[in-house]
Amino acid sequence: MSFENSPAHNEFRSDTFTTPTTSMVAAMSSATLGDSVYNEDPTTIALEQKVAKIAGKPAALYCVSGTLSNQIALRSHLFQPPHSVMCDYRSHVYVHEAGGLPTLSQAMVQTIIPKNGIHLTLEDDILPNFVPDDGEIHGAPTKVISLENTLHGMIFPLDEIKKISAFCKQNDVKLHLDGARLWNASAETGIPISEYGEYFDSMSLCLSKTLGAPIGSVLVGEKKFILKANHFKKQNGGGIRQAGLITSMASVAIDETFPKLKQTHVWAKELGKLCEEKGIALEHPVHTNFVFLDLPKNKMDPDLLDKLAKEAGIKLGGSRIAYHYQQSEASREKVKEIVLAVYESALVKPYEGSNYHKFYNVTAENEK
Amino acid sequence: MSFENSPAHNEFRSDTFTTPTTSMVAAMSSATLGDSVYNEDPTTIALEQKVAKIAGKPAALYCVSGTLSNQIALRSHLFQPPHSVMCDYRSHVYVHEAGGLPTLSQAMVQTIIPKNGIHLTLEDDILPNFVPDDGEIHGAPTKVISLENTLHGMIFPLDEIKKISAFCKQNDVKLHLDGARLWNASAETGIPISEYGEYFDSMSLCLSKTLGAPIGSVLVGEKKFILKANHFKKQNGGGIRQAGLITSMASVAIDETFPKLKQTHVWAKELGKLCEEKGIALEHPVHTNFVFLDLPKNKMDPDLLDKLAKEAGIKLGGSRIAYHYQQSEASREKVKEIVLAVYESALVKPYEGSNYHKFYNVTAENEK
Amino acid sequence: MSFENSPAHNEFRSDTFTTPTTSMVAAMSSATLGDSVYNEDPTTIALEQKVAKIAGKPAALYCVSGTLSNQIALRSHLFQPPHSVMCDYRSHVYVHEAGGLPTLSQAMVQTIIPKNGIHLTLEDDILPNFVPDDGEIHGAPTKVISLENTLHGMIFPLDEIKKISAFCKQNDVKLHLDGARLWNASAETGIPISEYGEYFDSMSLCLSKTLGAPIGSVLVGEKKFILKANHFKKQNGGGIRQAGLITSMASVAIDETFPKLKQTHVWAKELGKLCEEKGIALEHPVHTNFVFLDLPKNKMDPDLLDKLAKEAGIKLGGSRIAYHYQQSEASREKVKEIVLAVYESALVKPYEGSNYHKFYNVTAENEK
Amino acid sequence: MSFENSPAHNEFRSDTFTTPTTSMVAAMSSATLGDSVYNEDPTTIALEQKVAKIAGKPAALYCVSGTLSNQIALRSHLFQPPHSVMCDYRSHVYVHEAGGLPTLSQAMVQTIIPKNGIHLTLEDDILPNFVPDDGEIHGAPTKVISLENTLHGMIFPLDEIKKISAFCKQNDVKLHLDGARLWNASAETGIPISEYGEYFDSMSLCLSKTLGAPIGSVLVGEKKFILKANHFKKQNGGGIRQAGLITSMASVAIDETFPKLKQTHVWAKELGKLCEEKGIALEHPVHTNFVFLDLPKNKMDPDLLDKLAKEAGIKLGGSRIAYHYQQSEASREKVKEIVLAVYESALVKPYEGSNYHKFYNVTAENEK
Repeated sequence: MSFENSPAHNEFRSDTFTTPTTSMVAAMSSATLGDSVYNEDPTTIALEQKVAKIAGKPAALYCVSGTLSNQIALRSHLFQPPHSVMCDYRSHVYVHEAGGLPTLSQAMVQTIIPKNGIHLTLEDDILPNFVPDDGEIHGAPTKVISLENTLHGMIFPLDEIKKISAFCKQNDVKLHLDGARLWNASAETGIPISEYGEYFDSMSLCLSKTLGAPIGSVLVGEKKFILKANHFKKQNGGGIRQAGLITSMASVAIDETFPKLKQTHVWAKELGKLCEEKGIALEHPVHTNFVFLDLPKNKMDPDLLDKLAKEAGIKLGGSRIAYHYQQSEASREKVKEIVLAVYESALVKPYEGSNYHKFYNVTAENEK
Repeated sequence: MSFENSPAHNEFRSDTFTTPTTSMVAAMSSATLGDSVYNEDPTTIALEQKVAKIAGKPAALYCVSGTLSNQIALRSHLFQPPHSVMCDYRSHVYVHEAGGLPTLSQAMVQTIIPKNGIHLTLEDDILPNFVPDDGEIHGAPTKVISLENTLHGMIFPLDEIKKISAFCKQNDVKLHLDGARLWNASAETGIPISEYGEYFDSMSLCLSKTLGAPIGSVLVGEKKFILKANHFKKQNGGGIRQAGLITSMASVAIDETFPKLKQTHVWAKELGKLCEEKGIALEHPVHTNFVFLDLPKNKMDPDLLDKLAKEAGIKLGGSRIAYHYQQSEASREKVKEIVLAVYESALVKPYEGSNYHKFYNVTAENEK
Repeated sequence: MSFENSPAHNEFRSDTFTTPTTSMVAAMSSATLGDSVYNEDPTTIALEQKVAKIAGKPAALYCVSGTLSNQIALRSHLFQPPHSVMCDYRSHVYVHEAGGLPTLSQAMVQTIIPKNGIHLTLEDDILPNFVPDDGEIHGAPTKVISLENTLHGMIFPLDEIKKISAFCKQNDVKLHLDGARLWNASAETGIPISEYGEYFDSMSLCLSKTLGAPIGSVLVGEKKFILKANHFKKQNGGGIRQAGLITSMASVAIDETFPKLKQTHVWAKELGKLCEEKGIALEHPVHTNFVFLDLPKNKMDPDLLDKLAKEAGIKLGGSRIAYHYQQSEASREKVKEIVLAVYESALVKPYEGSNYHKFYNVTAENEK
Repeated sequence: MSFENSPAHNEFRSDTFTTPTTSMVAAMSSATLGDSVYNEDPTTIALEQKVAKIAGKPAALYCVSGTLSNQIALRSHLFQPPHSVMCDYRSHVYVHEAGGLPTLSQAMVQTIIPKNGIHLTLEDDILPNFVPDDGEIHGAPTKVISLENTLHGMIFPLDEIKKISAFCKQNDVKLHLDGARLWNASAETGIPISEYGEYFDSMSLCLSKTLGAPIGSVLVGEKKFILKANHFKKQNGGGIRQAGLITSMASVAIDETFPKLKQTHVWAKELGKLCEEKGIALEHPVHTNFVFLDLPKNKMDPDLLDKLAKEAGIKLGGSRIAYHYQQSEASREKVKEIVLAVYESALVKPYEGSNYHKFYNVTAENEK
């Protein structure tokens, strides 16, 4: 199937910009219309059961966003403060969920910079920062560790997950996975979602990101946990009525898009390889469907990047380049050309502008 | 149009149980598919502008639920605690939103029992309980008053709203309206939504309740307020991607269903009048589309009510009987018969069971 | 001992205004100086053990205020929201603790107006308002009931406490007592503090109110509960270093002042009886050391009350008249004279001013 | 004055363990006894005015702990979430205040590892991590920056403070100082407390840490800010009655101890220099009254350190060695001997134990 004419064919800002396919729309027209707040919608229940099975977990809960499924998962794992949630300093739950953790969960966040630059490890990152729940009264004990897979497109190795999971079990800590793009990790490694699921108390699996459903995310875990999460979902205003209209489409997205993800990794790696050959530094390796250019190191001009993209009719959002199944080959080629052009310009005329000063007010006084 | 075969024809639990009409589904199939989190969906923006205009307010925000629109409205009106929100003790924001106010807003709730049994008044209810922000440090000053119209189907008189609104303006208090069913109040009184809007800093107008859209609610207010509310919407996990799919249907619901509401009031009042004639006590008068039977006063057996409804194929949820535009005449007649039958049974054999003891564990010891 | 010359001899605003006695100061000079944050101060530990024993509880925690001991008690009884705390609408934890419950505990507060006007009862007040933790997702289940004894000087009957306690035990609800003035209830009824203690999961017993210690309150409960409460005490900034300096005085206050409380009740009842004889309405009966005049019903002028008190050198704070052991007989007589004078003035010229309008801005427009 | 016989002569765990001097006790016996909750205590008011003057700020508030003064300061600077507080990852407000920030302030904490290892700088640390309040809805804007001076005994350079302060003013960010030990920075640099004060919106100055008062901390800032902070103080349960008893002592501590601080820095630097000469690595330089041994780098055995300290009658709490004015020369010499002995033992037999594994349960399985 060609997506030359898809509204998303030139969209590289995120893999969330895909649009519903014909088969998704068809599914919607035959969806059931029960009230999902009262758990009376068969289509929604079926989707939840489907994802629960994929994840190897007893129960699942449909949520309108990944922020919702992540935040209520962390909330449901936490009881009495003082308590902390430990995560990578680049985690979605810390950076991109509008500061929800302290408000909803009264949780302190321990943001760790992984020593290896890729992912947290038990030895180097978690143990040195872990706050035990040992009766000491100055600290806020670490009660949840939240991993993300993929994170910036990078795969979290299963072996390290196993070590962390064992540590959590032994120390009464809950382990959550923001698996918005676990689909990509699974597609790339061949490890089933359910095998990842064995090591986590809960996982949040997005439908509207890489998979291309219009709306939603599913949280999986034990039954009692899901019941509690549903109470928090209602509290957060996430209870919706005739959910079948959108869950019907999500179900199709899983069936149709999941098999297409590996190809998007190939595309991203093509750009990654090109960069390597040309000496264009990346922030970190390309494991799946994202390329992160290291603009400052390459002294590439962010404004030029914006300008060339706009001229070429490509939607770009800074240094992060996202791949998804609805992009056209022509658009992908244009992206390569733009990146090369900005890099070559940098070789001639390195960008000397500050990465920060243009955003904030810093007087000359301060810059002396 | 007849709704004899609608899935909701026999549904009296709530007016949220209506299902999308053919024209709503048709609207959806031509909806735009922009990303609503990035405010890039024309259909959603158009719906927001439409509701803003109806309400006479500069800005509007689509939300997936009335709980979401209410809670982020109250949150956006509040700044630094200690602070209190004052409301009727039967308010949705207090009783039915899963205790969200303290969590999201750190707000104390002042729940007032209105002296007249119908609605709060400035003189009798608000002034005696108002906590001024005067520097006294033991209290939590009242910073928001939240009204509800209709509440349990009862209309809040515009004259009293005016008095309260003037008081709020003079005392630096924000006035919010949970107008989930303001559509009904407007349909019944003939007062435009926009005239109500003049007296409130914000209003939450549901689309999925009485109007019959499948999902959603719209919050209206000043532009700056709506921008802030949108940040809280994101924090609450209420940011959705291809919102056009559901906002397209909501727009149709406004056009098609709003004119049909008044008829649902006629139906509710028919039952109300019947009760009056037969001497069946109601909890309060029938103003719009709800009838609240006073089971304890009538000594009516709640289990018998359940049983007869089930036998007749009618969906009932206790003493509250809701009317909406998709009910069939046959179903409405059956409801009358059931109510009469239970009442007549009560005359012969009054229900002596406790309204509480069956739910909780209260030992014989306690009941001495 | 006479208190004619005590700085508090003319102080009727509250029983918190007493000043340390010679023996309290003597105790302080021999106090230990260990660091109480590290639980290394013998004097403080001894006070905690003393109060634990009085209350018949395994453990106790010294706090710098009753607000602190109440709030951390409620917090320690609560785990995951949504949850509610039920209490009398006049409770200190609701009215006078600066809205702390939603902030510290994310708790909804259910404020009940007791049907009998004096105290909550299981049948009339608690059962009709109780929100069970039964899986329903719209509500915030009642997880703690907080009683107050005495409340406005009124004694909570032990028989009713027993009923409520049994209900709580059977329904997984924690029962807390704000016993700031349980000392008065015990002194008046002869029921030991420890007998009250049998029916509560925790009690907060103030030292600086009726007992006259300069600073502090003690929370009692199970050991594990007290350990948790201590973590919250630290979080609230209530950890203090050389606590022995003030806990030494508190210990003396218990020994010396507790036996003197009953006499203060006699004094309050004298005024109560005088009011009854003269037809001066009170808000509620006088059980211990407080008299609450019903100014509106008597049409007494609050400004005149203030004026006469100031002229007579008496410190009064509105309609509530508090008795404590350091008042002089002359002052108590003056109070009677003032009350009578204001009442007699009201008979001649009833006060017509609003009780509210002078505090807030209500325009003539509104008052039509 | 010699402190050979002070209870604190051998106390190196913290500078909080000093005990009141004769002159402090004398001051207390003549303290006023007004009710501080009602702001009626002259002694407390005088102390507040004294510290306000020292800090060059219009207003001050006495608090029972530094945790209280820090937390209510941050709270009073914050209004509507989502919002973040940025601080050094070793900050007291993050590490040692029982996770209070998310609970009291609903604030996300941005913990930064300073690039220079000593203190945050505007260019390297703050600008790259700053989240502007620009309408973007995924983030939680940085609204407060909280510095600490001294931090781990290290002095924050005034020049960098000036840069950060200018940035904050230009970007609507509040700047708070945890100046628990600003007394030491001022004593060492000769820069008056009031000069530091020019660059901060608020400062928290402890009395019970390095200064040796038994209880308390003072928060300084603008009048309106202090009024708000007082409301939060009450909410946190920090309102105390006859505060004069302890504020009288604190006032003496400022007069008497402040001039003695510089000598404690000399003592700490003596140990620092000894370590340097012997090749014993420290975590960071000794600027004032703390020495932080780098046990892992020196492969020193923490258990041996504990053991030798106990044998010598010295109170030590791990790798941090604190100096204060009540230590005896004999004790200080013993500390040197102990440090040297443990280091020499490490040269012979380096400590190979994990710094973490002994605290947590990590199975052999995990350690493969």
